[in-house]
Amino acid sequence: MASKIALLQANPTVGDIAGNAERISSMAQIAVEHGANCAISTELAISGYPPRDLLFQQDFVEKCQVQATSIQSSIPILVGTPVKAKDSRSRPGNGAIRCGEANREVVRKQLLPTYDVFDEARYFDPDERPGIARTFGDLDIAVTICEDAWQHSGKTPVDYDSDPISQIVEWCRQGVDLDATVNLSASPYHATKAGVRIEVARTAAKSLGHPFLLANQVGGNDDLLFDGRSLIAWPDGQVLVGPAWKEGVLIADLSGPDNSEWIGEGVMTLLKPDENLIFPEDDILDAVVTGLSDYCRKSGINKIVLGLSGGIDSAVAACIASCAVGPENVTGLSMPSRHSSDHSISDATDTAKALGINFEIIGIENMHKCSESTLENLLENGHPVAGENLQARLRGLIVMAHANANGAMAIATGNKSELGQGYCTLYGDMAGGYAPIGDLYKMEVYGLAESFNQRLGKDVINQSTMTKPPSAELAPGQKDEDSLPPYPILDEILRHHIEHGLDATEIIATGQDEKTVNDVLKRLSSSEHKRWQMAPAPRVSKRAFGQGWRQPLAARHDWRG
Amino acid sequence: MASKIALLQANPTVGDIAGNAERISSMAQIAVEHGANCAISTELAISGYPPRDLLFQQDFVEKCQVQATSIQSSIPILVGTPVKAKDSRSRPGNGAIRCGEANREVVRKQLLPTYDVFDEARYFDPDERPGIARTFGDLDIAVTICEDAWQHSGKTPVDYDSDPISQIVEWCRQGVDLDATVNLSASPYHATKAGVRIEVARTAAKSLGHPFLLANQVGGNDDLLFDGRSLIAWPDGQVLVGPAWKEGVLIADLSGPDNSEWIGEGVMTLLKPDENLIFPEDDILDAVVTGLSDYCRKSGINKIVLGLSGGIDSAVAACIASCAVGPENVTGLSMPSRHSSDHSISDATDTAKALGINFEIIGIENMHKCSESTLENLLENGHPVAGENLQARLRGLIVMAHANANGAMAIATGNKSELGQGYCTLYGDMAGGYAPIGDLYKMEVYGLAESFNQRLGKDVINQSTMTKPPSAELAPGQKDEDSLPPYPILDEILRHHIEHGLDATEIIATGQDEKTVNDVLKRLSSSEHKRWQMAPAPRVSKRAFGQGWRQPLAARHDWRG
Repeated sequence: MASKIALLQANPTVGDIAGNAERISSMAQIAVEHGANCAISTELAISGYPPRDLLFQQDFVEKCQVQATSIQSSIPILVGTPVKAKDSRSRPGNGAIRCGEANREVVRKQLLPTYDVFDEARYFDPDERPGIARTFGDLDIAVTICEDAWQHSGKTPVDYDSDPISQIVEWCRQGVDLDATVNLSASPYHATKAGVRIEVARTAAKSLGHPFLLANQVGGNDDLLFDGRSLIAWPDGQVLVGPAWKEGVLIADLSGPDNSEWIGEGVMTLLKPDENLIFPEDDILDAVVTGLSDYCRKSGINKIVLGLSGGIDSAVAACIASCAVGPENVTGLSMPSRHSSDHSISDATDTAKALGINFEIIGIENMHKCSESTLENLLENGHPVAGENLQARLRGLIVMAHANANGAMAIATGNKSELGQGYCTLYGDMAGGYAPIGDLYKMEVYGLAESFNQRLGKDVINQSTMTKPPSAELAPGQKDEDSLPPYPILDEILRHHIEHGLDATEIIATGQDEKTVNDVLKRLSSSEHKRWQMAPAPRVSKRAFGQGWRQPLAARHDWRG
Repeated sequence: MASKIALLQANPTVGDIAGNAERISSMAQIAVEHGANCAISTELAISGYPPRDLLFQQDFVEKCQVQATSIQSSIPILVGTPVKAKDSRSRPGNGAIRCGEANREVVRKQLLPTYDVFDEARYFDPDERPGIARTFGDLDIAVTICEDAWQHSGKTPVDYDSDPISQIVEWCRQGVDLDATVNLSASPYHATKAGVRIEVARTAAKSLGHPFLLANQVGGNDDLLFDGRSLIAWPDGQVLVGPAWKEGVLIADLSGPDNSEWIGEGVMTLLKPDENLIFPEDDILDAVVTGLSDYCRKSGINKIVLGLSGGIDSAVAACIASCAVGPENVTGLSMPSRHSSDHSISDATDTAKALGINFEIIGIENMHKCSESTLENLLENGHPVAGENLQARLRGLIVMAHANANGAMAIATGNKSELGQGYCTLYGDMAGGYAPIGDLYKMEVYGLAESFNQRLGKDVINQSTMTKPPSAELAPGQKDEDSLPPYPILDEILRHHIEHGLDATEIIATGQDEKTVNDVLKRLSSSEHKRWQMAPAPRVSKRAFGQGWRQPLAARHDWRG
């Protein structure tokens, strides 16, 4: 008899306990139809990951656990769910329950990541050993949850006290006979870390001497993205990887890749022992579209509205919106002012037409003049930034009026480079419920524009938009480069500091100009108050502004020199 | 010789390493002048609490440690500081360094709170035992850090594996001779938890059989408030408590309360063994004024601007601002629309005059008409909320124009009840860098208004403002009660759920109407997206919106029934 384990790569909705259970049930049925002996869900598949403070609701953990155990199936399923605290002075566990033929708790997560976007020590108590499920569809398997598998390959930011994979290796050495080790994961996406999860799996399989299987969550929940790419790694170094950004069932045949299959859209990738995974060039496109699409679907939002300035950022945001909810549900607003150039309107029109989205031109001159008349004294005698921001805020007000009138969600179109410099207007262009490119540096936005043009088979973003110098157009002849370093340089400095934690001295040592570096870091620091009020953005990097970026707001004056 | 320990109740600025060291130095000098043998700083006094992700900056921990060890004094000082990780795969410690006569690390915190606003497992590795400082100004003392002392009295939300106070008790039982146990704290303020810290200290002193001393941080850092109230507790149950909301030095004489003194503004409170602390009725007034005042001072903000609607919320916010930065630095803007009642302007004028703040009336009718003309089609055919929000957003735009023109900070005037219901306009009345009453329920705002009238010796908030029915005045005849339950009921439902974690069934069981409860919780849940973009608010309750409130945004539809 073949030994087939089904990995249920699901896209759960946080909080939708009944819907998530239904999803697991129907995917398990697919597994049955394709001859799987048993099935493995993703981490916290019943609650969705991350459930955050829902775990503090007295009834939430209990509801999850009850719903998980009520799942019926002709093959056993391991279902990830919060499990009850051991007593009234403890926290719940991040566990897995065996359901289907018999209900029983199998494991609680041992290693609780508490860094970056993870807060698991806030919510869970750890356990001390991995789980074992015996005669689990005729198999004996060891069970780990996400981070549990990572210590073994040294891929965690700091060391834990224990190493669950080594514990299983030790059991095997002592004569425990296991067919495989499985891992229930909700392992987020990092655009620059394609190979890390593969290395973790390969290292585990090699140490264990039997197949290591990982079922990973897919889709977006709030600002977090999960790419799926569930996998099976064999001790010889081969790894079979499921597709990204799609729900589906990976029927993993323990004997080798040939008899394994993927039930769903997309195709699997087989990595030879000396190969690692490389993300396709347009992976970020799918990432950010998934983020916005899932945010809208899970929040009951059908329509999107955004300002279309004729610039690259809003053009790319329009592409994302169009792919996320369909062009017929997107409205782009061109809102020219007296400082807008001709190409502002024509380039915006081009993109809107090419995408097939709704498009309106609403000049702001009347509102601008009227506001200037009301605020005459203020604008004449105050700092000129008041007059510049006025225009951005009138546009924010129009976009929000459209959103409120039509039940649409406004999206903010800022990128990570400008948000990181405070080169944006709070309640102006920062207005919106979601910031689809808020975790992409400016030069990455250009790359994404090219990906959209290729994917959609035409220049939805025209050459004028791609090549003109970026400008906020809030004052005559204004260019971004008047206030900021050229974007290739700015992006590199920001990336050094934000993603790699280099301080000013270390960044200057890489060859960057001293004054430029100090100015960039000072602007980053002093614009923290704006980012406190920034909309969620789909997280594609190691450190995105938002839940994973916890800087103090005030008084950052002395420590960066 | 007398045995006097000085508790340095300081108000550090997060990130201002040099300034904080200077503050400790000068306070230690006061301690010397008043005959103290030694001095104890607050927790992380060098970095300020909470330093958040500054702890990830490669050079930050090192700079803190170097600065702490460089402090010179003729008496030994225990200085709270981040201390270096034990190796490259570990986290730093939350420690205390002995400086003055000799430099040496004494302790690292054992119990790392990771709940509510605390994220210490994210930043620190724990140690396994308390510290001991011997011949520390002729004394032998045990040293603990904040949470370390709390497990012993069972006042932590969940149990830790160890109890540092019991460890010290065990040492004493084994013959270790100690004069006192000290605790370096950054223990935040909760308006409803006056007695808890006292109980913790009293329980510790009783178990230890020697005095227990706690030096607590004072002041605001971002959204966190610390009330100070450093203390010494004796084994007989007496507790001497320093003043709140003021920097100062508590010279604690171990022999008893009579020879102890407070150097600074305010007076100490001596609690007899059967007494507990009761906060004065106007404690919240000092709390929120401290919050805004410190936020401004530490961010280099001198001026504040706000909208004055004539309602209770903005009137109270104006009082807070006036006390925080001085009336001459506050500008109130009355921005009447066609829906404003006559008393809107007269009541706002009354408050502004009584406070002596700057005051301007800027009617929005012209901008309103002009916007309606530009957006005619949208407003005529869309949801009426678009037209209502338009007015709130025009006001937000005017307040922000004022802020930008004059280098002031706008403050948002919403309270916790309306923010909790989404009964507020994103980018409208929610606009501002800080929300001084954002953690106060509506009925608490009325109480605070009375406190201000008493404190300032005149009706800065007039009777009309105090008694008229709350209204957003965005539509003809509109009243809050048309959309929300009466505030006493709303506040009680929200408090049950937010502060005490009751679910709908449990709240209904307290006697509240079923439909009202379900409606309130549904609005709370579905307005999460607004609170993601809310300005920081001084935290006076157990669970304030902001860093301590981590709800998922999307898809909260099924779990609350």
